[in-house]
Amino acid sequence: MEKNVLLTIAYDGSGFSGWQRQKGLRTAQGEIERVLSLLCNQEISVDGTSRTDAGVHALDQHASFKGDFSIPVENIPRAANDLLAAGLYTEMEKGYKGKSADIRILEAKEVPMDFHARFNSKGKMYRYLIDTSEECDLFSRNTAYNLGQALDIEAMNEACKYIIGTHDFKAFEAAGSTPRESTVRTIYGLRVFPLGNSGLIAVEVKGDGFLYNMVRIMVGTLVDVGLGKRSAEELPDILESLDRTKAGPTAPAEGLYLAKVYYEEEDLKTWKE
Amino acid sequence: MEKNVLLTIAYDGSGFSGWQRQKGLRTAQGEIERVLSLLCNQEISVDGTSRTDAGVHALDQHASFKGDFSIPVENIPRAANDLLAAGLYTEMEKGYKGKSADIRILEAKEVPMDFHARFNSKGKMYRYLIDTSEECDLFSRNTAYNLGQALDIEAMNEACKYIIGTHDFKAFEAAGSTPRESTVRTIYGLRVFPLGNSGLIAVEVKGDGFLYNMVRIMVGTLVDVGLGKRSAEELPDILESLDRTKAGPTAPAEGLYLAKVYYEEEDLKTWKE
Repeated sequence: MEKNVLLTIAYDGSGFSGWQRQKGLRTAQGEIERVLSLLCNQEISVDGTSRTDAGVHALDQHASFKGDFSIPVENIPRAANDLLAAGLYTEMEKGYKGKSADIRILEAKEVPMDFHARFNSKGKMYRYLIDTSEECDLFSRNTAYNLGQALDIEAMNEACKYIIGTHDFKAFEAAGSTPRESTVRTIYGLRVFPLGNSGLIAVEVKGDGFLYNMVRIMVGTLVDVGLGKRSAEELPDILESLDRTKAGPTAPAEGLYLAKVYYEEEDLKTWKE
Repeated sequence: MEKNVLLTIAYDGSGFSGWQRQKGLRTAQGEIERVLSLLCNQEISVDGTSRTDAGVHALDQHASFKGDFSIPVENIPRAANDLLAAGLYTEMEKGYKGKSADIRILEAKEVPMDFHARFNSKGKMYRYLIDTSEECDLFSRNTAYNLGQALDIEAMNEACKYIIGTHDFKAFEAAGSTPRESTVRTIYGLRVFPLGNSGLIAVEVKGDGFLYNMVRIMVGTLVDVGLGKRSAEELPDILESLDRTKAGPTAPAEGLYLAKVYYEEEDLKTWKE
């Protein structure tokens, strides 16, 4: 009998040409579909919640797929992860495992047939990491925006207050994006804070939906504020302009993490993390 | 007038085919020589202290080179690092810097003409990181050995006691290594400890010299002890055997860091780090 399965997936985006399947490129969706097709003995195609770009990471991506297969749903994560890791092992004497996979299925569960990973989601949280230490950590190149300059976090949080709420975010959509029905979105939370004394600064944003590159343009604009290139009070004008050129630059992909997908509206509206 | 310069260099080994210059491959030595040759307007060749293998990291590599050039020695790090980072920038609007280089010159200083980065060094310290958490950190794949199993640190430290001291370490030399004058080395310190609650375990070893793959074979053997596959008390027999097959497997490259190069004998004999 056909089942509908919801997967929770994590990946280090640095090794992928983004989420979406593309012929001849290593993508997260492509990898997941490859191993599920092997395990389910049929061609499987999955619907992801977020189409993350090349270099963007995911801690809590979701994807659903349907199929009539015999492998117990609860066995899918372990079996899939073994396949995902195979081929990444380093050459070692006596067969020690060398590398763990850069993409993993964290959970698989059966859901009602009408459930869809993307259409049923109520919103998402993204986290963005910025390395502000003068000499950026040698090993943070693929996991944080290597800014290498100090930021005024207080000023950035001031700017956040103008972004939170329901607005037309057209100024924060990549130029040349496919036109959408509406560019109005609701941002429920947006905050900037340091991660200990590491020099890493996190930006976290929760919303019911995001336009193409919206988080990265938001972060680029907040960084401008943090560097003193713009004042927090410019934000209302930028929003009202509906003009991409008025907002800041698009912050690079490597700092961005899809951190949480919400299927309950209440979870979206409060910070519990 | 000709000068002799000592460099301190750090690199993330995951992007390099090791230290040593090799035609057609990206190596740390090759990158350093490429940018120094540009800056000094002449072909520069550097002598490194340690020939790290592919995938091995360096926090404190040293290298010396001679030349008659006009750039002030103190300007070399900044100028070289700008060249090393160039080409790694991500495509961004408005020209933000995206990536910092995966190899950096930390310091350059003039030294007497008869000083040599390798021949004058009294010893080195290596650090080895092991991710013992059941699900290894998604982002530690290139920076730690993804073991994914708990280790008995106490037993490993017991085994360390047998290794510390002056021994013939032939059992801990890669099979088929070019024969050396002597395989006797002195290990001044060897210790195993957890890094907070991260699941990461560090092995640190200080010695006057290391045979080929000696640290990685030592770690592989200590891991065997930590997993209960061997007892600490087997170490004397392994050492005395002078037989590579009696020691444990070679732990993978990605966990290994050249952590310190010592030019003073006293620094080698105590733990100050």
